[in-house]
Amino acid sequence: MRYPAKNHARKVAELYKKLGGTETDYLVYLPATETKLWPHCDQTVPLRQSRYFNYITGAFDKPDAHVVYDVKSDKLTLYLPPIDEDDVMWSGMPISPEDALAAYDVDAVEYSDKLEAVLSGRTALTVDASEKYPSVKACPKLLEAFDESRVIKDEFELNLLRKAAQVTDNSHMAVMSAMPIQKNEGHIHAEFVYHAMRQGSKNQAYDPICCAGTNAGTLHYVKNDEDIVGRLLILIDAGAEWQTYAADVTRVFPLTGEWTKECREIYELVLDMQKQALDRIRPGVNYEELHIQAHRILIDKFLELGIFKNGTTDDILKSGLSAAFYPHGLGHMLGMDTHDPAGWANYEDPDPKLRYLRIRRTLQENMVLTVEPGCYFNNYLIDPYRSGQESTAAASYLDEKVLEKYMPVGGVRIEDDIVVTKDGHENFTKMTKDPEEISRIVKDGIRKGRGHFHCVV
Amino acid sequence: MRYPAKNHARKVAELYKKLGGTETDYLVYLPATETKLWPHCDQTVPLRQSRYFNYITGAFDKPDAHVVYDVKSDKLTLYLPPIDEDDVMWSGMPISPEDALAAYDVDAVEYSDKLEAVLSGRTALTVDASEKYPSVKACPKLLEAFDESRVIKDEFELNLLRKAAQVTDNSHMAVMSAMPIQKNEGHIHAEFVYHAMRQGSKNQAYDPICCAGTNAGTLHYVKNDEDIVGRLLILIDAGAEWQTYAADVTRVFPLTGEWTKECREIYELVLDMQKQALDRIRPGVNYEELHIQAHRILIDKFLELGIFKNGTTDDILKSGLSAAFYPHGLGHMLGMDTHDPAGWANYEDPDPKLRYLRIRRTLQENMVLTVEPGCYFNNYLIDPYRSGQESTAAASYLDEKVLEKYMPVGGVRIEDDIVVTKDGHENFTKMTKDPEEISRIVKDGIRKGRGHFHCVV
Repeated sequence: MRYPAKNHARKVAELYKKLGGTETDYLVYLPATETKLWPHCDQTVPLRQSRYFNYITGAFDKPDAHVVYDVKSDKLTLYLPPIDEDDVMWSGMPISPEDALAAYDVDAVEYSDKLEAVLSGRTALTVDASEKYPSVKACPKLLEAFDESRVIKDEFELNLLRKAAQVTDNSHMAVMSAMPIQKNEGHIHAEFVYHAMRQGSKNQAYDPICCAGTNAGTLHYVKNDEDIVGRLLILIDAGAEWQTYAADVTRVFPLTGEWTKECREIYELVLDMQKQALDRIRPGVNYEELHIQAHRILIDKFLELGIFKNGTTDDILKSGLSAAFYPHGLGHMLGMDTHDPAGWANYEDPDPKLRYLRIRRTLQENMVLTVEPGCYFNNYLIDPYRSGQESTAAASYLDEKVLEKYMPVGGVRIEDDIVVTKDGHENFTKMTKDPEEISRIVKDGIRKGRGHFHCVV
Repeated sequence: MRYPAKNHARKVAELYKKLGGTETDYLVYLPATETKLWPHCDQTVPLRQSRYFNYITGAFDKPDAHVVYDVKSDKLTLYLPPIDEDDVMWSGMPISPEDALAAYDVDAVEYSDKLEAVLSGRTALTVDASEKYPSVKACPKLLEAFDESRVIKDEFELNLLRKAAQVTDNSHMAVMSAMPIQKNEGHIHAEFVYHAMRQGSKNQAYDPICCAGTNAGTLHYVKNDEDIVGRLLILIDAGAEWQTYAADVTRVFPLTGEWTKECREIYELVLDMQKQALDRIRPGVNYEELHIQAHRILIDKFLELGIFKNGTTDDILKSGLSAAFYPHGLGHMLGMDTHDPAGWANYEDPDPKLRYLRIRRTLQENMVLTVEPGCYFNNYLIDPYRSGQESTAAASYLDEKVLEKYMPVGGVRIEDDIVVTKDGHENFTKMTKDPEEISRIVKDGIRKGRGHFHCVV
């Protein structure tokens, strides 16, 4: 079965109309990503295919092509770049129009020297201004239609996302099992990438975040080069890409397989934040509510542990202090982009709890998203609350003495990829998050020692 | 010891003068690579640091910085980008001016908001037009001075290149030892990258080329996704990067550890082409001569094997036919770029044997380059000679019947990284190329079976 490019093109045109687009006889034009060389260098910038182009060609993965959808005649045409004879010597023959027509769900395949004539004299819309074809108009309404179309996945896309999640599960399992050969964050990074690549995922959906100990408090930690000996926890946030579709999964485990009291408490808290969010996911629920619910669960637990004091859940929620420990959002749309479009985030929101939430809308069936609560202990995040910069009330709710015991925990995040179903959700991420089972996996790996890790995948 | 950025800046200024540059009181200005996002996406394009910036800052590896060298006062200043408070929350604090001053071989470190004032009213030269600071002039002479400076490596650079070569050796060794878990070209790719990453080389110098069987006839094969079962040879062309410095190494080995008669003959031929080139490398030798010598060795061997007939070595050399089997050059400059600058290639050369040779100049002490003869059996390359398109005489020299036996060999390339020394060369690449030893390594790996591969590194 081929990627349903034609259906996507039709769906985009329908949404354009529904959203108030006024053209009726027009072409949708999109270019593939262009080949670019690094300055003063004969090496190309790594290709990341245009997601919009990808969406209506059926994952055509070469640069410098174009696609045109004639809305009125319902005709989808892929335009291949002209054959570069010099390149054939080095790289072999590119795909022929015949082979492309068989491989992709389009109505016709031509070479792009025909394109100028096709576009001229017609109304042609695209998502960005085109330098090559200035007669084509950048149309924000068309972009919106594409983004809305991409929000609701079809079965073919769901299967690609399931496969990306499966590759990712196996790779997380490999990392968790390989402690005897992981002495540095870089080894963890290598282990994940290796197992993803062995399964056919040459590209990662994003740069893996591999943190030992308190480095997990830095949310976008990508250095991945410190020794891990003597730390408590490993946090790994990594996802494979499968035919342009992303997985995005975070797991946390203790280096030795043994949880300290504080690590286990925080881990269970985050697990509870996630469980209660997952329990409520279904069409019609607003993601903001689930996000705020996670804040309340964190505050209640912190009051119980004594990290927070002197206030009610409502008081502390209002002060914003929980954002010092859980500064990011509960999740984001997931698809061809790791942060897929149309979540309607508002990065200008005055409320620090909501400012970084990437989904601000009501859930619908077949939306795919991450559910990823977290809890971090990082002075960069806490200091603005201590000093009163973010909130005057906040500092009084904080028990510094109790907090001190939790600082070595660094950070915990648990992140799964899910699709909203008719009456709940399906979790694509099967990799365990049970603290007892994690303990067993890490210890099993340690017991088996070096040289037993390829068996995982 | 720190990367000798200051010496590099001085050397560039000296060469600028030597090459006829007329400014005497001027600033050299260079920007780091700028942070760029993929279109409609919050992910950054992978950072590849500007090599020119790198060269005179001492491998400062962050984007959006700038450097100014005041030639007359001999003052080298690094300008850090302003601190982005929002980013600190996600990524932690960037390096401070104090820490940067200690870590890099520069005279001062400032924030870049000072830069406008520094540049205004002074003559400032750079290598490309600057959009940000239009008063700075792009100066081809300065670019030439940089490139000439980069051609001759200092001891610090040689050590970085030695380290990149060592990481690469170990990774090739790992691949050669791991046949029981390598059933697809992608597994070979994964194995190489994994071992390079485990040694601290997060980036590869270039996209690895991993070919099974006849795929090796496609010179820039980067698909790396076919099954390898039933093929004869594996060709892997892969090199790690160490602090921006590249290795570039190719090895070939039989899947089973056993060479067929034809594979062994072609392998020994290429080994001989390389050996005779290496034997003659020293200051004062023109690389063109060594390249043509390699062609002669190939022609002689092909006459002996019966693939060529009906002509003398000179006749066949003149016909250009050997370029159908050895279409690329003997090597290229190696440094921060895999194809380092200032080799003086002439891609318009009417002689197909010389058209793709990337070094057309006399060797000097401390030039670093690759020596990489090859021999390929690929109809795309041979057909233009068969048809008379490239040369009318060529077809008559070809014995198609004998050639047929060699087609399954696919391709052999043997590539080492060397530095030209006072009286010869030093070979950075220690990984064996002896066919008997290769045979033993592959067979040892097969005998040991799965699960014994991490010991290699």
